[in-house]
Formats: sequence, structure tokens, C-alpha cells
Amino acid sequence: MNNFEYCVPTRVIFGRDTHKNIGELIAGYGFKKILVQFGGGSVKESGLLDQVEDSLKSHGIEYVLLGGVRPNPGLGLALEGINLCRKENIEFILAVGGGSVIDSAKCMADGVLNPDVDPWDYFMKKAVPDKALPHGNILTLSASGSETSLSCVITKEEEGLKRGFNSPTHRPLFAVLNPELTFTVNKFQTGCGTVDIMMHTLERYLGGPTKDTPLTDRIAEGLLTSVMEAGEKADKNPEDYEARATLMWAGSLSHDGLTGLGRDYLMQVHQLEHELSGLYPDIAHGAGLSALFCSWARYVCKDAPMRFAQLAVRVFNQEMDFENPVYTALKGIDRLEEYFKSLDMPVSLRELNSGITQEDFLLMADKCSSKGEKTLTGIHELGREDMIEIYRMAY
Amino acid sequence: MNNFEYCVPTRVIFGRDTHKNIGELIAGYGFKKILVQFGGGSVKESGLLDQVEDSLKSHGIEYVLLGGVRPNPGLGLALEGINLCRKENIEFILAVGGGSVIDSAKCMADGVLNPDVDPWDYFMKKAVPDKALPHGNILTLSASGSETSLSCVITKEEEGLKRGFNSPTHRPLFAVLNPELTFTVNKFQTGCGTVDIMMHTLERYLGGPTKDTPLTDRIAEGLLTSVMEAGEKADKNPEDYEARATLMWAGSLSHDGLTGLGRDYLMQVHQLEHELSGLYPDIAHGAGLSALFCSWARYVCKDAPMRFAQLAVRVFNQEMDFENPVYTALKGIDRLEEYFKSLDMPVSLRELNSGITQEDFLLMADKCSSKGEKTLTGIHELGREDMIEIYRMAY
Repeated sequence: MNNFEYCVPTRVIFGRDTHKNIGELIAGYGFKKILVQFGGGSVKESGLLDQVEDSLKSHGIEYVLLGGVRPNPGLGLALEGINLCRKENIEFILAVGGGSVIDSAKCMADGVLNPDVDPWDYFMKKAVPDKALPHGNILTLSASGSETSLSCVITKEEEGLKRGFNSPTHRPLFAVLNPELTFTVNKFQTGCGTVDIMMHTLERYLGGPTKDTPLTDRIAEGLLTSVMEAGEKADKNPEDYEARATLMWAGSLSHDGLTGLGRDYLMQVHQLEHELSGLYPDIAHGAGLSALFCSWARYVCKDAPMRFAQLAVRVFNQEMDFENPVYTALKGIDRLEEYFKSLDMPVSLRELNSGITQEDFLLMADKCSSKGEKTLTGIHELGREDMIEIYRMAY
Repeated sequence: MNNFEYCVPTRVIFGRDTHKNIGELIAGYGFKKILVQFGGGSVKESGLLDQVEDSLKSHGIEYVLLGGVRPNPGLGLALEGINLCRKENIEFILAVGGGSVIDSAKCMADGVLNPDVDPWDYFMKKAVPDKALPHGNILTLSASGSETSLSCVITKEEEGLKRGFNSPTHRPLFAVLNPELTFTVNKFQTGCGTVDIMMHTLERYLGGPTKDTPLTDRIAEGLLTSVMEAGEKADKNPEDYEARATLMWAGSLSHDGLTGLGRDYLMQVHQLEHELSGLYPDIAHGAGLSALFCSWARYVCKDAPMRFAQLAVRVFNQEMDFENPVYTALKGIDRLEEYFKSLDMPVSLRELNSGITQEDFLLMADKCSSKGEKTLTGIHELGREDMIEIYRMAY
């Protein structure tokens, strides 16, 4: 087990009706003027935005609305938001939406208090934010875990570059998690969310050669087992509160750090997928992940067959083949692929219907490897040629 | 699943050598004068206190030492510490030790900033602390989970009353967790710690009738499985770093709230045990728990056989008897009892060798039930007569 630091100061407020007290909650922190960030029309249509506005008004909190965040959120809107926050002397940013809205809010929060830094520099690892405007969220989509995580992923539209970075400034002050707000998430987005949640834990679990993390392993395996069950239930019955609750809480735990404590990992499949949805912004992140993951797993599993076998036995209920652990490892990956299919999630790039061609593989591998200058560490270190091969296998 | 709030702002710094940077860590928060609280001679003999003092000195941090905390820490020393902190204008309390030392520090932290309240009133639920001096710890014993928890348990010596209460003021600013510092913990104390860690999760898992917490269940089951394995390894080889690391991290997670999220519970066995070690302060808390738990479990399991059967199947690898779940439930309890015995932990009150008599049962049940006026909620609500019966079964 490696040494680690872990601190999740975000106050989680979980359960039915919890969003209705948002005005009181924010007033309790003493904020008087806030910006409310949201995405498209769904929070308007559902009446959620009205409820939020009513609650803010009844607690005397002034607010400015900024909508329009799209999936794979862009730098452009965040820059606009930063200017707006400065102009309006905003004290706090409330994100109402999914991971894209929250990430846009995080990017803004970093930017507002650091006027001398180009916010994109943070994503290019040229600078580190040392302070940020406080921010919190009302979550409407179980997937990214951004509601409690250190992460923030933004796309620079004109270059098709999707990049993320971690920072303690990204931990929200609070996260209001009401599973009922996800009842209206459609089948495809529910599937994407289930995949994304699983990936955040799987990539930690399979991301590196660290040994001796039995407690972290057991927590990860328990989370995966619960999420698969809940994903299936929510797929069949979108208003199953308990299934939605499991997905929502698992979404937070899966990316807050807990399921990788003491382990080395670099999220290789996330890196490969960022190139994909960076180039084709219409590809949903979860769909890109499910299209790539099993090919990646088959490519690397021979380097750590016992690790993949452990997953197969403990999460996918496979019998251990003691004479041939690779066989068990591969069977586990097959079961995972079947699970993705059962949710109608793509398991190949072709199924994404995005117009992706084999020529794109070179471009994406070039970007991901900085033209061959960078490799991705892991149980199998991936260079440019490995990346091309995985994209090809996934096609 | 019930609604819940969850927030663990404590910064966990985990791993080898981490305690050596304590001066730098505290200086980073800007504290200039602190009190260092510790227990008996072990932190002196091991050289740990010297290391702490050297590190504080080299970062220009003034400090006052206050040793002498005993197991089942008393109110008397805490009151003395409160006066000392006020007199010396202490800004921060550093606890170096196990749960007793940390709890004593928490009691002091509450007291220092609330001069108009008798600190014992908090434990008697007559008042609630709204602020406290910041405090942190270097942990030397994996057991209580106090290093990150909301809990604080103190004994009022002259009345033999051991009482605890939860408060956000009890969350430490940081917890320095170096498993190497527990290499010297002896066999008996290691066993006590293993039991205590298991109980914090088991009492949440079995503490109430809540349904539909599959993720919390899986995390709890994973923690129990890992702890049992690590407890066995540490019992055989006290310097097994990985086993000590699992116990230490499990100790924190087991009582920080995570393993009971969304569930109703009241820790009945802890309540019954507090009367025991309140009356006989020489009884180690973990030994008291292992002496009582299986009798309690056999007494209440018929009210929730499927819950106990789930534990037996998932944690103790028992086959499910679908025609007779109570049989499976009881087999799981038998396996737990065997596990305690394998660590040489007591499974009856008689083995505690404390001079406890059957007459004490009435006294303890009177105290625990406030002379029959109070019951303990749970899957089986316990009144005074139930308590007497459980003490009797455990004898």
C-alpha cells in the first residue's frame, strides 16, 4: 500500500426533497449574491430551476442565472462566466445539473479569483490555482462524481482539446444529492452514467501494479457489484428510488478518491476517451468509455492476469481457473461486455455512429501521446503504437 | 434508504514516516502555541514523543505537555487540561496516542471555548457545543476511530458513569496515521482493537431495521472481511505493515459514518458495554464488546434473521439455508465467536476476570435503562429486562 492523503470536506446532503432547502442552506453560509449555473432546458422544464429560484428569493439571496452549459463543457462559456462573476461581485457559484455544469462552475471558480492567469493554463499544467470562489451543487445526473471530486474536465472548442486537472479548489462546499431528480434521466444517459461510475472505480482498481490494498479492493468490488445491480434496475424502472439512490451515492464515492486509496493509477481509458469526445464532441463520455474499455482490458490483462482474475471472481462470480488465470481474466471481461450490452451501451467505436474513421486513430494517438513523446503509465505502459492498436481493436 | 448528511473534513495523512513532519504540518496552519496530550509512558519509551517535540521545536512551535490519560479517560484530567489551555493561551491541541487520548483532547477542545458550560453537561445531553478549539492527532492504536469520528467518550470517575456524545466539533483538523506506530501494540490490545473496529461496522449493519442500503452493506461487508484477515495477520506477526495498515485505515472508516450511511442504528452493544467498563474501568472496551456481542446477537437475531443470514453468507462464507434462515444466522454468529476465540479475546463476562457478579447485571441494566425508563431502539428494542437477560446470557 502506498502512502496517501485524503480529505473530502464537501458536505453531502443526501435524500428526498433535500434540494428544496437550498436557500436556507446557502443563507447559512452567509452568501448574499450568487451565480446559478445550469445547462439546457431540462432544469427549466422539470420545474427544478423555479424551485431553486423560489427558495433563494425567500431567503433574500440575490442571484444571476447563467445557462447554456453543454455536455463536454467548453472553455468559451466558462470565460464568459468568469467575467460575469467579476462584474456582478458574485460570492458563490451554485451549479444545478450534471458533471458538465459542475465542471464549468469549477473552471469559473478557479478563474474568478486568479485574474492574472489564463484559465486554460491550469488544464495544460502550466499553473496551479491557489484559491477559488466557493461553489456547490444540486446534482441532476449520477455519473461524473464531480459533485464531490477534485476533477474538472473542459474542452477548448477551437482545438478539439479535452483536458482535465485535479485541484483541492475543486472540492465543492456542499453537494445536494436527491435521487428523485434523476428519475427523468433517459435510458441512454442512465446507461452512460452507470458506465462512467463503474469506470472511475475500475480504472483505479486496474490502473497500476500496486499490491496490498485489500480494504480499498473490497470497497471497490462492493461498489461495482452494487452499481451493476442498480444500473440494471434503473434501466428497467427509471423511478426506482433505491436504485437511483445507489447510483447517485456510488457516483460520488467512485470518484472522490476512496476506491483508489493507497494505489497507483493513471486512468488510461479516460485518457483515450478524452481524445475521442474531444474530436467528436457529440460522443457521450460514458458511451465512449464503454466502447473502449473491453478492448483496452483485453490488450493489457495479460500483464496482470491475477488482478483481472480477482475482478472476475469477486465481481462477476466466475470460477477461478487456477491453471490458467488469463482464461478467468478474459471471462470477466466478457461478462462486463455482456453487461454493457444489456444496457444497450456500445462496445465498439463503430456503434457510436459518429463518423469516426480509422485515420482518426493516428490523430487521437498523436494527441494522447503528444506525438509519441508521452506514454501512459499503468499495468501496461501505453505508447503511441499501443494506443493505435487499442483504438483499432475497439473499432 | 434514509436521507443522510455526511461530511468528514478531517485531512487524513496516511503512511510510513508521516508523523515526522508534524511540526511542518502544524506550522502550515499557522498555530504558534499548542498543547500536546498523551497517555502513559509508551510514547516516551518508543521515542515518539521525542520525535514530535523535535519536529515542533524545529518549526518554532511552542508547546505544553499534558500526559497521564488512561484507558476509559476520565473527566478529571480533561478539566485540568481545560484550565491549562486557558492559562497558556493554547491555540491547538495535538493528541498523540489512541482513542482515549484523542477523546480527552476532544473534551478539552469543547471545554476551552465554552467557559460558561459544565463540560459534563454535553455528555448528559443538557447542552451542545457550538465551537471548539481545533485539534488533531497522531494515532498509535487502531481501534476507536476517534481520529476522524464525531464521537467522544468520557468517564465521570466518582459516579462510574461512562458517556459519549457526537458533535461536528469532534472532527479533528487532521489525523496522521502511520501504521508503523502500531507495531509495538501487544497481542491483547491488537485483539481489542480488531474487535472494536468490527463492532463499529457491525453495530451499524445490525443496528436497525432499515432496508435498501446495498452500497452501504457491501462497503460494510468488505470492511469486515478485510479487518478479520488483517486482525489475524497482525495477531501472528505484529510487524506486518500491510495488516497494520488495513487495521488502521479500517479503524477510521469504520466509525467515520461511511459504513452506516442511510441506515437507522443505535449501538446497543456499545451501550451495554459502557455500563460494564464504566463500573469496572479496568475492562478494556474491546474485550467488553467481544464478551457481550455474540450473546446480544443470539438474543436479537430472530427478529431479523435475513439480515443476520446475509452477514453469515457474505462475510462468514456460510451456505444459505433457504428453509431455515435463522439456522444460517446462528451459524454466522458461531463463526464470529470462533474468530474472537482465535484472537484469544473473551466471549463471556466470566473470562474478563474483573470480579463481576450477577448482582451487577441489575445495577448495569438500571443505569443503561435509566431505571427502566429508557429503552434502546434497534431490530429488537431493549428494555431493562432484555438487558439483564443479555448480561446473564453473556456470563
